[in-house]
Amino acid sequence: MINLAQYAKLAGTYDITTGEMKGAALVRRHLSDLRGSFVDAQAFESALRQSDPLIYSVSSIEPGKGQGDLHYGLGVLMPGKVGAEYYLTKGHLHAWREAAEVYIGLRGTGCILLEEPSTGQSQIVPLGKGSIVYVPGHTAHRSINTGLEPLVYIGVYPASAGHDYGSIAKQNFRKVLIERDGHPLLLDRTEVAGKV
Amino acid sequence: MINLAQYAKLAGTYDITTGEMKGAALVRRHLSDLRGSFVDAQAFESALRQSDPLIYSVSSIEPGKGQGDLHYGLGVLMPGKVGAEYYLTKGHLHAWREAAEVYIGLRGTGCILLEEPSTGQSQIVPLGKGSIVYVPGHTAHRSINTGLEPLVYIGVYPASAGHDYGSIAKQNFRKVLIERDGHPLLLDRTEVAGKV
Repeated sequence: MINLAQYAKLAGTYDITTGEMKGAALVRRHLSDLRGSFVDAQAFESALRQSDPLIYSVSSIEPGKGQGDLHYGLGVLMPGKVGAEYYLTKGHLHAWREAAEVYIGLRGTGCILLEEPSTGQSQIVPLGKGSIVYVPGHTAHRSINTGLEPLVYIGVYPASAGHDYGSIAKQNFRKVLIERDGHPLLLDRTEVAGKV
Repeated sequence: MINLAQYAKLAGTYDITTGEMKGAALVRRHLSDLRGSFVDAQAFESALRQSDPLIYSVSSIEPGKGQGDLHYGLGVLMPGKVGAEYYLTKGHLHAWREAAEVYIGLRGTGCILLEEPSTGQSQIVPLGKGSIVYVPGHTAHRSINTGLEPLVYIGVYPASAGHDYGSIAKQNFRKVLIERDGHPLLLDRTEVAGKV
């Protein structure tokens, strides 16, 4: 039987300034956790010798595990670059490939990079304050902060979605978003590798 | 095959001032659409003789119909009262009873009234700017605006959730949220009926 009092306790607050969400499990990713994610390995190692800053955090709440349940997380992605490439999340596919995700932008300026792994189809979709992005099933997705303040968003996904980071770790996204002349530019990874 | 360009087109903006969401299907509920929802039938008819104001709107986007897909909507519930009872939405159960819903509060002050119909268990959970509410499956839910400005929120739910308004229309929520001495007070409907 549903215990409503228990669910009512989960109801909480999110803070787009501190990135905190009451009662959430917090994961923090520092630069050192992102080895292999950025296209410019030399710039990455050089930055890491200077410091190991927090790149992003995700605060997740998982109220239930039933087929109709949902999980949600508050993401905070810091502004910055490794070489010319904007700070980004590792990115993932859902383990249950059909699972979609809705991203609700709350603060900052950035985008989500979408890729359909089997065909390599890619899309950049704006994500920032006041925007919503739908990530369909079967689609790898990564957040990218192209602005000067933290990019803050809430993602909602089916409880049974699961996260598959391995596929991305094995073969990175085919596209890379770099800054050129002060603006974001989407290029092929193969085109950029070794040149930035 | 996934057509990412098509999904990218769905990505849009939401506006917490106008209540608009790009590309959404808009439903508007006026006072006359809410006959039977408020406890004080006399106050309702009397208000309706004066005017038929907009009580709430919901802008919905339904990107897909697969098992892992999600739908989402931007709700805007106006401030006001019928008699002593705050403006509210009709409320619904999901046709697929297991389907949950995540509410993300973006503006204003209010709450969600939860009720498990078979037992009558009820809970009031705050919903407003900076709050998140999880509505578990098998739970009737209704938004209530207890503030002085529009209550704006985004709801995300499984694509296969469906809406069952009939059960609520047949037997209203057992609890009623009224204003007393300037504050919200949750009472039993049977206790209030005929007395407000």
